Amino acid sequence: MAGLGCCTVLVTGANRGIGLELVRQLAESKHPPSQIFAGCRDPEGPRAKALKELVQKHPKLITIIRLDTSDPASIKESSRVVGSKLANGSLDVLINNAGINGPNTLQETGMKEMMDLYITNVVGPMLIIKDFLPFLQKAATQPRSGARKGPMIINVSSVLASIEKCRETINIAVMYSYRASKAALNMLTRCMAVEFEKDGIMAPVAVVDSASGMLRVISSLTAKDSGTLLDWEGNSIPW
Amino acid sequence: MAGLGCCTVLVTGANRGIGLELVRQLAESKHPPSQIFAGCRDPEGPRAKALKELVQKHPKLITIIRLDTSDPASIKESSRVVGSKLANGSLDVLINNAGINGPNTLQETGMKEMMDLYITNVVGPMLIIKDFLPFLQKAATQPRSGARKGPMIINVSSVLASIEKCRETINIAVMYSYRASKAALNMLTRCMAVEFEKDGIMAPVAVVDSASGMLRVISSLTAKDSGTLLDWEGNSIPW
Ligand SMILES: NC(=O)c1ccc[n+]([C@@H]2O[C@H](COP(=O)([O-])OP(=O)(O)OC[C@H]3O[C@@H](n4cnc5c(N)ncnc54)[C@H](OP(=O)(O)O)[C@@H]3O)[C@@H](O)[C@H]2O)c1
Ligand SMILES: NC(=O)c1ccc[n+]([C@@H]2O[C@H](COP(=O)([O-])OP(=O)(O)OC[C@H]3O[C@@H](n4cnc5c(N)ncnc54)[C@H](OP(=O)(O)O)[C@@H]3O)[C@@H](O)[C@H]2O)c1
Repeated sequence: MAGLGCCTVLVTGANRGIGLELVRQLAESKHPPSQIFAGCRDPEGPRAKALKELVQKHPKLITIIRLDTSDPASIKESSRVVGSKLANGSLDVLINNAGINGPNTLQETGMKEMMDLYITNVVGPMLIIKDFLPFLQKAATQPRSGARKGPMIINVSSVLASIEKCRETINIAVMYSYRASKAALNMLTRCMAVEFEKDGIMAPVAVVDSASGMLRVISSLTAKDSGTLLDWEGNSIPW
Repeated sequence: MAGLGCCTVLVTGANRGIGLELVRQLAESKHPPSQIFAGCRDPEGPRAKALKELVQKHPKLITIIRLDTSDPASIKESSRVVGSKLANGSLDVLINNAGINGPNTLQETGMKEMMDLYITNVVGPMLIIKDFLPFLQKAATQPRSGARKGPMIINVSSVLASIEKCRETINIAVMYSYRASKAALNMLTRCMAVEFEKDGIMAPVAVVDSASGMLRVISSLTAKDSGTLLDWEGNSIPW
C-alpha cells in the first residue's frame, strides 16, 4: 500500500465509503501519516460505527472531527479544533472526499436537487479550503522530504465531471445535478491551483474509483500535476 | 446585421445590457423573427424603460414577458404565457442570457455568493429549458428552411467558463463564483446537446462579447456545433 509518511492528513466524509477506506488504508500503510483527522458529520450516530471501531485500533493516529461539510459554522468550528490539535500547526494533505449524488434524469432534477448538491459538493469544499488554508500555508514552510512533497488539496472528482467526455459517459449516468456540481468543483480546483502556486500548495483533482487507486495517485503526485484532472492511473483527462 | 428570419425567439434578461441589444438588433435586422419575447423580471420598474421604448417602436414584433429567472414559479408562469401567445405553439430559439456577476476574490466569496450565482446562472436556465421544452420540441416538427434550421437553445457563457483556459484568463478576473457557475452551465448544455439530439434540438454554448457577435454566431450555426463551446467568431474553444 502507498503511504503518506510523516505528514498530517484530513479526510472529509470519513465514516463510510471511500473516505473510511482512505483512513483505514492510510492508518494501516507501511508509512502511515503522523496524524489523521477523520471528518464525520455525526460522530455519535449509527453511521459512525465502523469509523469508531477503526479509531479503537489506532487511537493515537486517528482523531474523529465533527464536520458537516454543508454547514459553514461546522466547517469553521472543525478548523478551530483541528488547528488546536495539529502538532506544529501544519496540515499537509486535505482530502475533500465528502459528496452526495443526485437524481439521474433531467425530469427528476429541480431547484432543490441542484442546490443540495452544489452546497455539499462545491460550496462545502471551497469553505473548507478557505478555513484550513492557514494550516496548509504553514505546511508549505516546512522542510521537504521524499514523503513530504509540499501541501496538497485533493478535491475528489469523477469521470462524470469531464465536460469533454460527456458524450461517452452519458451512458453510465446522466445525473445533471451531480455532473454540474463536479464540473464546478473542477473549475474551483483549477483556479486554486493557479492562485496557490505562490504558496507552494498543489491542487490536483483526483478522479476516484477506489481508496487504493486514489492513494496510489496521491503518493505519486508532483508539482506538475497541480491543476490537472487525473484518472485513477494518474493520467490527465480533459476537462 | 445577421437576422433570424421567420422564427420565434425568447431572450431572457432583455431589459438591459446584451439582452436588450439582442432584442434591438433582432427587431431591426433585415429578416426579423416573426415573434420576439423579451424576458424581464420587473416590466413595471425603472430598469425596463429602454425595453419599453423599444417595444413602442415594434409593438407587433416584441412582447415583454415577466420572467425572474431565479424564481421557479415565475419561470413556470412565463412558459404558460409564452405558450398562449406563440402563433403555432413552437419556439425556435431560446436564449438564456440573464446572468449575474460575483465578487472577484476567494476571500470575498462565501456561501451566499456561490448560491446566488448558481441559482441565476445555472438553475434558472435549466428550469427555463425544462418548462419551454415542449415548444422547442414542437418547433422541431416544423418544416426547415434556410432561416429555420431547427430549434436551438443558446446558453450564454463566458471565456472565464473554460476550465482549460483558467491559467490564461485568471489575469482578466478571478471570480470563483462566476466561473464555477458558468462551468456548471457548460456541463448542463453539453449534456442537453446529447440528450436533445433525438428531438432535433441544438444546444451550443455561445461565449459572448457583444449582441452582434452572438447573432452572427447564432445565424451561422449548424447541427455539428451542438454541444460545443463557441467563441464570438464561431470557433470552438476547450472546456
Ligand atoms: N463511489 C464511486 O464510484 C465514486 C466515483 C466517482 C467519484 N466519487 C466521489 O467520491 C467521494 C466519496 O464517494 P463514496 O462512493 O465514498 O460515497 P458514499 O459511500 O455515499 O459516502 C459519502 C460520504 O460523504 C459523507 N457526506 C455526505 N454529505 C456530507 C456532509 N454534508 N457532511 C459530512 N459528510 C458528508 C457521507 O457521510 P454520511 O454517512 O453522514 O452521509 C459519507 O461519509 C464523493 O465525492 C463522490 O462524488 C465516488
Ligand atoms: N458583458 C460581457 O462582457 C459578458 C462576457 C461574458 C459573458 N457575459 C454573459 O452575458 C450575459 C449578459 O451579460 P450582460 O453583460 O448583458 O449583463 P448585464 O448588463 O449585467 O445584464 C444582465 C441582465 O440579466 C438580467 N437578470 C439578472 N438576474 C435576473 C433574474 N433573476 N431574472 C431576470 N433577469 C435577470 C438583468 O436584469 P435586471 O436589470 O433586472 O437586473 C439584465 O437584464 C450574462 O449571462 C453574462 O454572464 C457577458
